[in-house]
Amino acid sequence: MEKIFTKTHQDANSLARCGRVALPHGLVNTPAFMPVGTNGTVKGMYHSSVSDIGYNLILGNTYHLYLRPGIEVLQKFGGLHKFMSWNNNILTDSGGFQIFSLSQLRKIKEDGVTFQSHIDGSRHHFTPEKVIDIQHIIGSDILMCLDVCTPPDITYYKAREACQITHNWARRSFNHWKTLEGFEGKLFGIVQGNFYEELRKESALTIAEIDFPGIAIGGLSVGESPAQFSDYLAYTTQYLPSDRPRYVMGIGTPDYILDAVANGIDLFDCVLATRSARNGAVFTDDGMIQMKKAVHEFDMGPLSEGCTCTACVQYSRGYLRHLFKAREMLGGMLATEHNLTYLYDLMQKVRLAIQEDRFSQFKNEYLSRYYGK
Amino acid sequence: MEKIFTKTHQDANSLARCGRVALPHGLVNTPAFMPVGTNGTVKGMYHSSVSDIGYNLILGNTYHLYLRPGIEVLQKFGGLHKFMSWNNNILTDSGGFQIFSLSQLRKIKEDGVTFQSHIDGSRHHFTPEKVIDIQHIIGSDILMCLDVCTPPDITYYKAREACQITHNWARRSFNHWKTLEGFEGKLFGIVQGNFYEELRKESALTIAEIDFPGIAIGGLSVGESPAQFSDYLAYTTQYLPSDRPRYVMGIGTPDYILDAVANGIDLFDCVLATRSARNGAVFTDDGMIQMKKAVHEFDMGPLSEGCTCTACVQYSRGYLRHLFKAREMLGGMLATEHNLTYLYDLMQKVRLAIQEDRFSQFKNEYLSRYYGK
Repeated sequence: MEKIFTKTHQDANSLARCGRVALPHGLVNTPAFMPVGTNGTVKGMYHSSVSDIGYNLILGNTYHLYLRPGIEVLQKFGGLHKFMSWNNNILTDSGGFQIFSLSQLRKIKEDGVTFQSHIDGSRHHFTPEKVIDIQHIIGSDILMCLDVCTPPDITYYKAREACQITHNWARRSFNHWKTLEGFEGKLFGIVQGNFYEELRKESALTIAEIDFPGIAIGGLSVGESPAQFSDYLAYTTQYLPSDRPRYVMGIGTPDYILDAVANGIDLFDCVLATRSARNGAVFTDDGMIQMKKAVHEFDMGPLSEGCTCTACVQYSRGYLRHLFKAREMLGGMLATEHNLTYLYDLMQKVRLAIQEDRFSQFKNEYLSRYYGK
Repeated sequence: MEKIFTKTHQDANSLARCGRVALPHGLVNTPAFMPVGTNGTVKGMYHSSVSDIGYNLILGNTYHLYLRPGIEVLQKFGGLHKFMSWNNNILTDSGGFQIFSLSQLRKIKEDGVTFQSHIDGSRHHFTPEKVIDIQHIIGSDILMCLDVCTPPDITYYKAREACQITHNWARRSFNHWKTLEGFEGKLFGIVQGNFYEELRKESALTIAEIDFPGIAIGGLSVGESPAQFSDYLAYTTQYLPSDRPRYVMGIGTPDYILDAVANGIDLFDCVLATRSARNGAVFTDDGMIQMKKAVHEFDMGPLSEGCTCTACVQYSRGYLRHLFKAREMLGGMLATEHNLTYLYDLMQKVRLAIQEDRFSQFKNEYLSRYYGK
């Protein structure tokens, strides 16, 4: 197995750990949050602003990029890095979650999945191998296996069936990926199992058995309670090897991130930081605040004291509120930059706390203020 | 009269001229295009990007800013410059045009105008004096007089009545502005007269008689043909003094701008450069092109050869097309930056051509390519 993860420090009092993931476009310090750039752009951000914050690993969505601009365009431009002029790392998901959540019709068979585009209703067929090929053309630094995503309320038997297909597809994905000579992208397997401990354990062990460079935990953060999320995350992670990067898909608020870090997770992504920013919600040490509220009208202070983003350095809460009330693009642009800066800074504090063996203390103090206690 | 305009060169073969306008937040080289920042933000642009291009004079809209964030907020923050963190010049229009074009109900009397907000339907009353006071609180570097705007199809008698009210309001505006001690903002009068030469001449002479630091030509670019625009602009401008800056409101495409410059106009503004950019239309030397078109799908070239904006330096037409098709904010952001860069560069070429007494030749050559001849 190709080793891409180096653990640099294990927190003395929790499962939290610091490390480095070696990827084709550079080293990523973990634990790390990854901004989402679905269509080859982090919404509302210049690429240079994303990398200036410090991010060197962002997400793209295979499902979206396959539909638009399409594989022919990406092939002609020599991959997504060149197409979007981004010289840092890109992780692409497999499309499994988007087919589950966005496409109108989907039919899962042993061979693959047929679905309808949410854009124009056109029909498409993905197999595990095809999804690897698409990500190969995209030029992803981290590729994900096609998986079967399930809603939280299905029966054990349906969850087990989905899980078995996911495992089968994982093996096929791995075998196909191995045939791509000269390609440096790293393939991650995805653990599923819905909310059944037996299936979670089986899935974790099955996926861990395959020589993936990294492993993701899917099927969480789909509407369950924070306690349930935490329980299933902890339960699943114990069966994962510690020598590979662990990635939890779909989390992006400070509380969930800190919980994941406490469970030894290294990577996370979520649209929440950027999507909520466009709706006027920004992170602060005292929790998320909504900038459209009247309370900010005359407020000359920054969004978040000590933050180094453009909004906090140059503008007031009053001006930000005005931009959101007037539905000005600059509001979303500045709030997005703020939220991404805030999360990056938070992760730096997290890494430092781990290195100094005081992560649990940091987490408790941070959450106590975050929840307003 | 306070002299703020210095003519630095008169083109030998046309009425085109180069100059400098001295304003509280710095000198402005003319002829100059002014980007529009209605709500205290040039849509889709960081302020630093606007000033990095070279712009040091942008527009704000008195009508919009009065309604939102409101005068109390602007007063508390010490004016618009501080509120929006913009240290260069701001010109504010008077609201006359917005009351005419945006508000649902308006009742013009000799005293002032009553109108309904397009945002919430609330009723407001503007007098010439109140509009000066609002711009005083905004802290405008250039203030405009409240005027009566009229559609192009009204009778001579209605146009004359509107004109007379505009002149009366201009005198009242001037007298009130003169009482504002210590305020450095410069008040411009506005010539009206609809499409009646007699009224245009009378309005130009009447406004010129008042000691305004600068004069604007209103009531053009309201749906008339380019030839009509050009004729009425030339006809009006001949009655304006040459020792003051002349500003034509509402033009912003290269062809109209070159026509205005040829008539000795120094300043212009328009939302077109920024609004059309958000819809995917960008300036090139070969005319405006629509980035959503399929022809750009595989195009690896820049929007406009030689342009120094972020879009042209870093990205392809293909990527821009993708951003517009996917309705991504970055498309509007990049295209806006491009259009403003393009117009700034065009004005630099225009100023150089005037200084070298070859403006007419430049104009002819430029337009011949622009119109695809």
